[in-house]
Amino acid sequence: MSVVYTQDHRTTAREAEGAEARLGVIGLGRMGAMHAANAARIAGLHVVAVSDPHGPALVAASERLGAAGHPDWRELVGRDDLDAVLICSPSFAHCDQIIAAAEAGLHVFCEKPIDLDLARIDAALDAAKRAGVTLQVGFNRRSDRNFAGLQRRLAAGAIGTPWLLRITARDPAPQPAAYVRTSGGLFADMTVHDFDLARFLLREEVVEVSAVGAALVDPELAEIPDIDCAITTLRFASGALGVIEHCRQSAVGYDQRAEVHGPHGTLSAENEQADTVVQADATGVHRSRIAGFLAERYDGAYLAELEGFTRCLLTGAAPVAGGEDGRRAADIAAAAQRSLVEHRPVTVSEIG
Amino acid sequence: MSVVYTQDHRTTAREAEGAEARLGVIGLGRMGAMHAANAARIAGLHVVAVSDPHGPALVAASERLGAAGHPDWRELVGRDDLDAVLICSPSFAHCDQIIAAAEAGLHVFCEKPIDLDLARIDAALDAAKRAGVTLQVGFNRRSDRNFAGLQRRLAAGAIGTPWLLRITARDPAPQPAAYVRTSGGLFADMTVHDFDLARFLLREEVVEVSAVGAALVDPELAEIPDIDCAITTLRFASGALGVIEHCRQSAVGYDQRAEVHGPHGTLSAENEQADTVVQADATGVHRSRIAGFLAERYDGAYLAELEGFTRCLLTGAAPVAGGEDGRRAADIAAAAQRSLVEHRPVTVSEIG
Amino acid sequence: MSVVYTQDHRTTAREAEGAEARLGVIGLGRMGAMHAANAARIAGLHVVAVSDPHGPALVAASERLGAAGHPDWRELVGRDDLDAVLICSPSFAHCDQIIAAAEAGLHVFCEKPIDLDLARIDAALDAAKRAGVTLQVGFNRRSDRNFAGLQRRLAAGAIGTPWLLRITARDPAPQPAAYVRTSGGLFADMTVHDFDLARFLLREEVVEVSAVGAALVDPELAEIPDIDCAITTLRFASGALGVIEHCRQSAVGYDQRAEVHGPHGTLSAENEQADTVVQADATGVHRSRIAGFLAERYDGAYLAELEGFTRCLLTGAAPVAGGEDGRRAADIAAAAQRSLVEHRPVTVSEIG
Amino acid sequence: MSVVYTQDHRTTAREAEGAEARLGVIGLGRMGAMHAANAARIAGLHVVAVSDPHGPALVAASERLGAAGHPDWRELVGRDDLDAVLICSPSFAHCDQIIAAAEAGLHVFCEKPIDLDLARIDAALDAAKRAGVTLQVGFNRRSDRNFAGLQRRLAAGAIGTPWLLRITARDPAPQPAAYVRTSGGLFADMTVHDFDLARFLLREEVVEVSAVGAALVDPELAEIPDIDCAITTLRFASGALGVIEHCRQSAVGYDQRAEVHGPHGTLSAENEQADTVVQADATGVHRSRIAGFLAERYDGAYLAELEGFTRCLLTGAAPVAGGEDGRRAADIAAAAQRSLVEHRPVTVSEIG
Repeated sequence: MSVVYTQDHRTTAREAEGAEARLGVIGLGRMGAMHAANAARIAGLHVVAVSDPHGPALVAASERLGAAGHPDWRELVGRDDLDAVLICSPSFAHCDQIIAAAEAGLHVFCEKPIDLDLARIDAALDAAKRAGVTLQVGFNRRSDRNFAGLQRRLAAGAIGTPWLLRITARDPAPQPAAYVRTSGGLFADMTVHDFDLARFLLREEVVEVSAVGAALVDPELAEIPDIDCAITTLRFASGALGVIEHCRQSAVGYDQRAEVHGPHGTLSAENEQADTVVQADATGVHRSRIAGFLAERYDGAYLAELEGFTRCLLTGAAPVAGGEDGRRAADIAAAAQRSLVEHRPVTVSEIG
Repeated sequence: MSVVYTQDHRTTAREAEGAEARLGVIGLGRMGAMHAANAARIAGLHVVAVSDPHGPALVAASERLGAAGHPDWRELVGRDDLDAVLICSPSFAHCDQIIAAAEAGLHVFCEKPIDLDLARIDAALDAAKRAGVTLQVGFNRRSDRNFAGLQRRLAAGAIGTPWLLRITARDPAPQPAAYVRTSGGLFADMTVHDFDLARFLLREEVVEVSAVGAALVDPELAEIPDIDCAITTLRFASGALGVIEHCRQSAVGYDQRAEVHGPHGTLSAENEQADTVVQADATGVHRSRIAGFLAERYDGAYLAELEGFTRCLLTGAAPVAGGEDGRRAADIAAAAQRSLVEHRPVTVSEIG
Repeated sequence: MSVVYTQDHRTTAREAEGAEARLGVIGLGRMGAMHAANAARIAGLHVVAVSDPHGPALVAASERLGAAGHPDWRELVGRDDLDAVLICSPSFAHCDQIIAAAEAGLHVFCEKPIDLDLARIDAALDAAKRAGVTLQVGFNRRSDRNFAGLQRRLAAGAIGTPWLLRITARDPAPQPAAYVRTSGGLFADMTVHDFDLARFLLREEVVEVSAVGAALVDPELAEIPDIDCAITTLRFASGALGVIEHCRQSAVGYDQRAEVHGPHGTLSAENEQADTVVQADATGVHRSRIAGFLAERYDGAYLAELEGFTRCLLTGAAPVAGGEDGRRAADIAAAAQRSLVEHRPVTVSEIG
Repeated sequence: MSVVYTQDHRTTAREAEGAEARLGVIGLGRMGAMHAANAARIAGLHVVAVSDPHGPALVAASERLGAAGHPDWRELVGRDDLDAVLICSPSFAHCDQIIAAAEAGLHVFCEKPIDLDLARIDAALDAAKRAGVTLQVGFNRRSDRNFAGLQRRLAAGAIGTPWLLRITARDPAPQPAAYVRTSGGLFADMTVHDFDLARFLLREEVVEVSAVGAALVDPELAEIPDIDCAITTLRFASGALGVIEHCRQSAVGYDQRAEVHGPHGTLSAENEQADTVVQADATGVHRSRIAGFLAERYDGAYLAELEGFTRCLLTGAAPVAGGEDGRRAADIAAAAQRSLVEHRPVTVSEIG
């Protein structure tokens, strides 16, 4: 059972003769439905079963994919014909599902965050480790052609050892207040992606975090309490410095950029545009908006991360983002939160 | 049987309840295989049968798609369970297949060019007309988000009534000499796409053509005789002027751009880039190459044109590019060829 | 008397010890006043006398520059303390002034066009040749940092031997009809700059011209007769092809670009922007207009061409554009005009 | 005595009839020589006297400008024919010179920083206030067409009330260690420009500063002690947040950018490029480096700020950056330095 794959940004797991991984999908909300549709496009990956407590969604997905439908995820995990599960349920259920799947000997792809509680994350990681199964975390930016392209050039030494990193992360619009209330806060829920991206790009650990933030977009968030604008400064083990700019609202669209500065120059990953049309007129030169929210911006990334997981299943390769990466990002988020509250720089080693 | 669809650049035919069109695919080379794979992603479109004289390709596609396989395309056309055929065979077979399909009452999507012979094109168009079936021609640029975006803004009056049009069309590398020898020449084989694009963008007819050309990339083409560089000037019915720059080779990649200039400004569609990474260093500011050849550059366009054809099948809508459009583009190509040979401006009305 | 100068785009003639060239300026309209102001900024160049029949302009310039004022240009040419003259009078006077200056042993910088009449141009060139004086023509694009930068990279072999050239030339707004009426027509008055630019960039001769044109911006121009939109195709001695797109009006501003395509890639010179501010909002990404008309766009070019002329005066270097270049550009303009009128390709050798 | 001037980015003080301001220039190093040359290009401004202890520089400037030369700056200040002085001496001399000039009734343009000592700055400001003279500080970024263009759009409400500001400031190469040793440190010497830019763009005060920094480019700076990389977080009175990224070295060139994010979008000022040439080839799309160091990048800004000062002299207008602005920027620099040393957020009100 061997798989050959190309290394370029459209890396595709080619169908090995006979090799095939059988997948169960837990949770059929927006993310689950999207991953399930992508799974159907990947050679060697077959969706065998799906699970969701919501009847109509379950029936629809089951029919469309020709897969068995289980209202109870424990039934799905209990099947004897699966190699792996893809966990897209609400965050609070992740750890229980990871543990149950691992104990059933199933490999796991889990959407981020693993959990908001560090101890529970550790329990899930331990379960996966004991069972010897792969645990991949859905840090989609690692599979984005632009951020991955930046990382590849950086790793190839294009600008030497980095001195400064900047990540800009702005959402099109805030999540509903109800969501925010149980989300764990800006750092744990959103910036966690960027903490992971920082580690991915520089391939080293964050040792200290200093965060300032405010509820400027929606001052009522302060009552939760939560924030919607933040500037988070990072100090890395090598001494390099980093900064993450976060805002919950951007009229511009889903604004996701990174820039790294080093001895030989500067590397950046810019936004993608909805199209390449340019209108020049008496008022200036106008381009189209940047490409839309998650589904559009990370369209290729979602497919690529699932192709990557399929390679792990078929070849035993290490995942692009593992459980340990999920834990480290959670640590940094916790340090940022403490820095915000205590109004001081916080070392990551204080956490956990 | 009705279908609702969105108007944006990611227009997707939504599955209408029960509505479904059954498709046969004739020819399973590069284009046929690609269209068949896309068909599987479109709700309401089902590939029922495929045909190719090459056994292994036929078996592979038949299995992958769960479709019946016919070595002889006439068998496929003779089936009584099809609504439409998608013709991706070599050009010389197109007209016979269009006529047979039309006579069997099947709608037709035919890859470009319909044929190199104007009389044969007319015969095919007549057959479709007599049978009252839709004939869509594979002018993929009309479904490209960038060219379609330019056209939409132009039609909305963004720059007023156009004065000048420029199309730049450069291929990554020349086709093999053997292909070129039977291709009908640069204008009929390649620039035909751009003649159609010119009509699509300006929504009016070309009345006069003036072409200069040379075999600069590969001087041996002159023996065929054929050319690989050309500048073709167009005069439109409104008086507007246009120019198409063509080259069979571009180190830059697949360079496909258009620009329209009018009273209120200038609209252009630029190339897409492989990724958004920017490297700035002591030597300058460097971006990635433009996106690759057909499969990458027109990835979305191929899917969109088949979605459009599906809408025609399900709703009776007119095709984005019909048989008449194929004929007009062929006329302009013939005028350009005559201009090149006779070294003078040629009116399109001289042709046909 | 030697001068050392740097080669970069801000080339500045450094003051050689004691070396100094004394200049007379004939004509103090917009161009003359601008050149005279620039002359004051160039080390080694001293404006000694100015001439203009318009009294107030003469007095003002004379005072500002501390230079003698002559209502009659023949008086200025007759002075015995000049090394060179700068001719910025109306075109019809150019040849008489060049001849008189040459016969007085003065080097000449003459604004374009030398004249509209080819025989008169030849007489002026002959006079300069007989007298052994330098005759530089004001083809400012050759001294523009962008076009000169393109030419330098091209000459350095960055993309190999060119196959295709495109020049885009669009003015912000048409000249007044009264001006156009005596201007000699679009090709002789405006495109002449681009014919010279084509020769400058490719460093080879144009052998055939094919022009189409129309009065689309202002249909009344057809009565002169003249045109305001033109597409002119060029065939060069090497076989390379070129095209010039011209329009007398552009809402976008002064749109001046060039692109050369060759075996190893494509080189272009784009427009400069008024500033680098970018506004991204819900409607798209907006940049400022391109930089303004002559004075802004070719600000640096006007200074650089006069610095270049000063170097000619101080070191005997050849001018960046000589009288012969003026004649060649006029020939191509005449061929373009004939092609337009006779509706056929015209070889440049038919002219003159 | 009135002056009319245009509001566009090439604002030029037009010569009012008879109005004229007489200037003395103190210090003829790089900055002094540059300002003196610019002064010669500004209508209504006359350099009457210059001063420098270095004989050859004094003689050269004196001759070139036709101005009196004083080895001792006190002699220059003692002249009775001056309206104003331009102070470009080493920083330690600034305050004495401002005070002496103010006491002599002269208006003052002083290069930044006013001084490194806050008490001495206050003394200089007091002197100017008592004497009722204008004191303009050389914060050139305020007169840069790009930053000023950003500020103008921001003030016009293009994106609403700002939430986030980012300034990127990277020098081409570090200053010599000897310079750094007496410079007052990164924040006081260099970032002071950006602290002022932050206040200029947002038109409000900074209330809290949080700085992290390191000597990454040249670890030996740590012995001074000083740093060469810094990330400084700002909290503004309105609650808006800001960040300044600073590095003493950039292979890319003089990298000076700003971005402001608000409710209706994002405004940024990007770098200018040395030219607009684009080379596309098999390896990507390549643009020229960004424009060079101070003299090139802020060429127009230096001229514009002196034109602005001339307007102050002729019309009594307020300076674009006054003494108070110099003091505020120094306060923020001191707060940043304290934050760095004490490893905690520091309020600006703690300073001074």
